[in-house]
Amino acid sequence: MKKLINDPAQVVSDALDGFATAHADLVKVNRRPDYVVRADAPVAGKVALVSGGGSGHEPLHIGYVGRGMLDAAVPGPVFTSPTPDPILAAAKAVDSGAGVLFIVKNYTGDVLNFETAAELAQLDGIDARTVLVDDDVAVQDSTFTAGRRGVAGAVLLEKIVGAAAERGDSLDACQALGERVNARMRSMGVALTACTVPHVGRPSFELADDEIEIGVGLHGEPGRRRAKLAGAAELAAELVGPVLDDLAAPAGTPVLMLVNGMGGTPQSELYIICQEARRLVEAAGLQLARSLVGDYATALEMQGCSVTVLLLDDETADLWDAPVATPALRRGL
Amino acid sequence: MKKLINDPAQVVSDALDGFATAHADLVKVNRRPDYVVRADAPVAGKVALVSGGGSGHEPLHIGYVGRGMLDAAVPGPVFTSPTPDPILAAAKAVDSGAGVLFIVKNYTGDVLNFETAAELAQLDGIDARTVLVDDDVAVQDSTFTAGRRGVAGAVLLEKIVGAAAERGDSLDACQALGERVNARMRSMGVALTACTVPHVGRPSFELADDEIEIGVGLHGEPGRRRAKLAGAAELAAELVGPVLDDLAAPAGTPVLMLVNGMGGTPQSELYIICQEARRLVEAAGLQLARSLVGDYATALEMQGCSVTVLLLDDETADLWDAPVATPALRRGL
Repeated sequence: MKKLINDPAQVVSDALDGFATAHADLVKVNRRPDYVVRADAPVAGKVALVSGGGSGHEPLHIGYVGRGMLDAAVPGPVFTSPTPDPILAAAKAVDSGAGVLFIVKNYTGDVLNFETAAELAQLDGIDARTVLVDDDVAVQDSTFTAGRRGVAGAVLLEKIVGAAAERGDSLDACQALGERVNARMRSMGVALTACTVPHVGRPSFELADDEIEIGVGLHGEPGRRRAKLAGAAELAAELVGPVLDDLAAPAGTPVLMLVNGMGGTPQSELYIICQEARRLVEAAGLQLARSLVGDYATALEMQGCSVTVLLLDDETADLWDAPVATPALRRGL
Repeated sequence: MKKLINDPAQVVSDALDGFATAHADLVKVNRRPDYVVRADAPVAGKVALVSGGGSGHEPLHIGYVGRGMLDAAVPGPVFTSPTPDPILAAAKAVDSGAGVLFIVKNYTGDVLNFETAAELAQLDGIDARTVLVDDDVAVQDSTFTAGRRGVAGAVLLEKIVGAAAERGDSLDACQALGERVNARMRSMGVALTACTVPHVGRPSFELADDEIEIGVGLHGEPGRRRAKLAGAAELAAELVGPVLDDLAAPAGTPVLMLVNGMGGTPQSELYIICQEARRLVEAAGLQLARSLVGDYATALEMQGCSVTVLLLDDETADLWDAPVATPALRRGL
């Protein structure tokens, strides 16, 4: 295992210290319990957005804390959900009385722990709701999931609902918007290589030199099938096809497309996939209105990518364009 | 070779198409000759900053085109300098009469081709100057270089001089500022794995499973020595030590530190190096005033990182903080 780390058991903790150093202008990092809040939290009168999940997907979610996006993020151990305690502590730290919305990727551990935290928050008088993200069309159930997995679409949802909360939308409105965004987006990914969880020390799965995993999950979970490595045009079709089939959107619908790197993929390759995916989106009669290309939801050093398509309307397009100031996504602030 | 590409010979061209799709709000991409200019180029009365070099280092340089940074960037083939023709074409496209400053990393091919382009531009009546970037302390001469190599420090120089040009500084002032910034920054990198140039199809060098290259160049050129993989604290010391020794800055000097990923390194590992490097910088009596952590100057999918330290003063700190709107670096716009 070749990693720039000290103790494999301390990777999340050591990285959080460096994250605090690098982004002290935007966020505050709390240690024991570990969570990240925006520098000006709690914001009076504002619905607080809280997300989290296993570490190893950076910048997801800690990199999206800041004005116009998340109020807090709770990082668990690598690929492992945070427990209810730090989630509850984060919710308390950012709640200003307008309520807390948990944004939770659909994994069994995350769902359970955020649900428990929501119940405990309710007991403390905090109106805590949850929006589930389950955008991955690859498989119905998976290693850590009942139902569809939540993957890179979480970034888009956090940005759009974050902008709504920032402009003063109510908890009801933010929750409804989150559910609407989730219902209108789908993702699918491919892995060219596996990744290695530091405290495990060996790759999560094995891929031959000419093999790829189509429909891979964000932790390297099996997807639809193993296949031989193919060209970017063919791979883009393997990802975009199922996404568009599942969305079944009317021609002319404006879309936001995220081409997401899994951590170990050069930007040039993501741009190549972007161009191939654009052709497919436009060939399906949809209008590519916005795009985002880069490492936004990763699986450690995995080589591969995912494509997310979100059907936009005027409101969600405006919210996407709204100013944001987080470590990983910044515009207009 | 596992890459998300179509034809290995078309990687740069295909990626440029995707880059144009993804960032149409910020830049315009010209094809044949290939160069990228900011969307509002040429900007009347403004000194134009032009950089470029071999592709494969993205976001360097095309990702830094936009308000407050570069006016144009010229991408060559992977790890190969662009020829004078596209450099000259880019200079002509962005010159508004206030002159053009070429920002050139110190590699023999880049120096020669930008020099020729500058001479041709002068013949066309454009006042074209050059600032060389040679921040890499690892080795004095190298595979493609006489003198020190230019590496990730180029990002800092382009940002700071870009802000100066944006506020209306003259060509003389921008050139002098560029030389001042270059003289006040040093970098050093380490590779955990090699990278594969697409049209070559095999790794540029070989590293054993437990081996690293200390002082590696941005194309995988040899550095100071091969060593056994060590912990992040020890590796950070291997990088920061020579950088600080060479800078020989008085105690109390404020610094900007860039912890740069080479392309295949998870963000969490860069943050761990950031924290270790911070300890060393502060132990040396310097004041960590600003930091930047992420993949800013890469070598395709190489795993590894570099650390750059720039000695700040009030003016360069203000210019660093100034608004910028590029695909890869954005703040306040």
